Amino acid sequence: MRIKNIRERPISLSDPMSNAGISYLHMTASAVAIDIDAGEKGIVTGYGFSSVGRYAQSGLIAERFAPRLMACEELEGADGGLDPVRAWASMMTNEKAGGDGDRAGAIGVLDMALWDAAAKIEGMPLWQLLSERFNEQKYHKHVPVYATGGHYYPDGDVNALMEEVKGYLDQGFKTIKIKCGQNDIADDCARIEAALSLLDYDGSRLAVDVNCMCSTSRETQEMADAYSPFKLAWIEEPGHPHDFELLTALTKYYDGPIATGENLFSMSETYNLLSYGGLRSDRDLVQVDPALSYGIFEYTRIIALMEAGKWSRSQLVPHAGHLLAYHAVAGLQLGAHEIAARPDFLLGGLHDGVEIADGEGTLPQSSGIGFETHGKLWEVLKTV
Amino acid sequence: MRIKNIRERPISLSDPMSNAGISYLHMTASAVAIDIDAGEKGIVTGYGFSSVGRYAQSGLIAERFAPRLMACEELEGADGGLDPVRAWASMMTNEKAGGDGDRAGAIGVLDMALWDAAAKIEGMPLWQLLSERFNEQKYHKHVPVYATGGHYYPDGDVNALMEEVKGYLDQGFKTIKIKCGQNDIADDCARIEAALSLLDYDGSRLAVDVNCMCSTSRETQEMADAYSPFKLAWIEEPGHPHDFELLTALTKYYDGPIATGENLFSMSETYNLLSYGGLRSDRDLVQVDPALSYGIFEYTRIIALMEAGKWSRSQLVPHAGHLLAYHAVAGLQLGAHEIAARPDFLLGGLHDGVEIADGEGTLPQSSGIGFETHGKLWEVLKTV
Repeated sequence: MRIKNIRERPISLSDPMSNAGISYLHMTASAVAIDIDAGEKGIVTGYGFSSVGRYAQSGLIAERFAPRLMACEELEGADGGLDPVRAWASMMTNEKAGGDGDRAGAIGVLDMALWDAAAKIEGMPLWQLLSERFNEQKYHKHVPVYATGGHYYPDGDVNALMEEVKGYLDQGFKTIKIKCGQNDIADDCARIEAALSLLDYDGSRLAVDVNCMCSTSRETQEMADAYSPFKLAWIEEPGHPHDFELLTALTKYYDGPIATGENLFSMSETYNLLSYGGLRSDRDLVQVDPALSYGIFEYTRIIALMEAGKWSRSQLVPHAGHLLAYHAVAGLQLGAHEIAARPDFLLGGLHDGVEIADGEGTLPQSSGIGFETHGKLWEVLKTV
Repeated sequence: MRIKNIRERPISLSDPMSNAGISYLHMTASAVAIDIDAGEKGIVTGYGFSSVGRYAQSGLIAERFAPRLMACEELEGADGGLDPVRAWASMMTNEKAGGDGDRAGAIGVLDMALWDAAAKIEGMPLWQLLSERFNEQKYHKHVPVYATGGHYYPDGDVNALMEEVKGYLDQGFKTIKIKCGQNDIADDCARIEAALSLLDYDGSRLAVDVNCMCSTSRETQEMADAYSPFKLAWIEEPGHPHDFELLTALTKYYDGPIATGENLFSMSETYNLLSYGGLRSDRDLVQVDPALSYGIFEYTRIIALMEAGKWSRSQLVPHAGHLLAYHAVAGLQLGAHEIAARPDFLLGGLHDGVEIADGEGTLPQSSGIGFETHGKLWEVLKTV
């Protein structure tokens, strides 16, 4: 078992949408293909594609992580299959601890391609391989999902937001997440009320992502006061991802669920979030994104970390709705999967053939991650 | 005032040395040159060179930060000079909060080149510009310094270590830092005793860097028990940079000074270190490296953060002995400057003409950072 070659190409994710923090006009992602010589099973190609929000990692992959991965001589696990955990250690050779940012995404997308290949070599979908290797063969038979959308657009208004939410309900979603925080709180409330009018005014079906808009505890309290009557499913990312004081103050002030963690990229950062962030294990959600955070191995360590404390893996809800995360949610029995549900977005939706009804998705059956069965993404990936 | 072009080239820092965590055989750094059209003052070129330990950032610079910097249209400050703080905001456009790793070094080395140019435009050394812009014109007339060396080498032994330390004393240093932690504690103690035999057995003249060797509080206690009799100047980086629990336990157990922070890369990470790390403001040292941590502007925010609490800027001792840090230590009146004192190391030493005696350095007088007056480094930088 050895790696024959690694290819990477940056892909534009340019999109007119924005959130309270950034615009996506210049957003990019890395598309990766790794050819593995799998002996009797021939050449198997694994694919990876970056999660959204942190840019392509062409430079870091070419400069450090692809060469180290090419030099990795032991890829087989004890059972003779491809074991990406071994490759992970090679990629981190001579990397100092700390500084979990871009490199966590560069390693994450390479790790993803290795897991795609590993599952293909076993002839099974990735959720099944993850279930076998890390979850005592248990998995979600019906995968809990929610739709994310409701970004800001240059000419967008509340009516456009409502049209978008209607579309998600038509697709079979029950719970929806929208963006707030780009304008004032009155504008936020108008957006929330518009969405709720389509959700039987049931706040538990609506989550609101404010993308770090609050700089002070006073701002979080004003937000909490304004949002409280809606009894939302959760408020997401109230402040700076490292601001544990602000988070702790908010979780003392506001009874409803809080979700955060998409801008933390390692087990050690997650540990500090759990230690100092004031989060409540019975309701709050941790959204670390495996695709941006060194990949599957680091993520299994995060699950172990949570379960070693008071936390359940059902409180893990990965950021961004990546196909990799769908397998992780299914095979590792996490809380729910986020789906970027706008049909024209490159990373939107799930595999062709996966059906969504009543807020749950079916299990994909093709080998590996199944990028080949995601029409839009495969058009891009097959060119790598 | 506008940027005409930005050039970057990765440079090998390959060296046989290693510490308890990594080898430097494949280490690289970015060399950067930025040409500024400074109007009547003509074209001024600012240079930057990465600090050691975190690799060249060619990819991130080419993909994200150089293009954004080229697009920055407002570079002049209120006084008409070049104001790198404005460029800093441009470079961070559409970057999400959190994930302070490689990008902090990419921005840091570009920021450095802008500060070099800014000081050249004013016709003064950078320490003077920093003193004027951020420190009410105060500065260190004599810059406190210490020598770093004592790495591990393939054929190194205690005699070689002693030869190295002797060389540093001959150069005029009083305080020396050596590496420990790669082997067992008995080996550490032999190294410490050998160095102390050259320092009048005065532990306050010897610091020991263990490069994150301790994984558990028990290991830190064993280390503290073994090192305690030596009354060292400080023990550096006992555990993982995010492990605030381990650090807190150690600072409760061990009375001597602890130094850490070289693997944290932003104000928000520093804030959490100060909030949760159990450090004592009367003795412990914070070693965030401005060259790896978004540059001078972020560093001035870190100083403000410390002084807003119980801390003094004299507890700031930047990592790695970079020429940029020498100006920061001098012009912002920080605690001390680390000097990589091995004469053949590319980043070793200071500007030609700067003299070291009795543990203090003189002030460089050439404009800017003065890379042009550092023989070895200029040989590399002038080719960019």
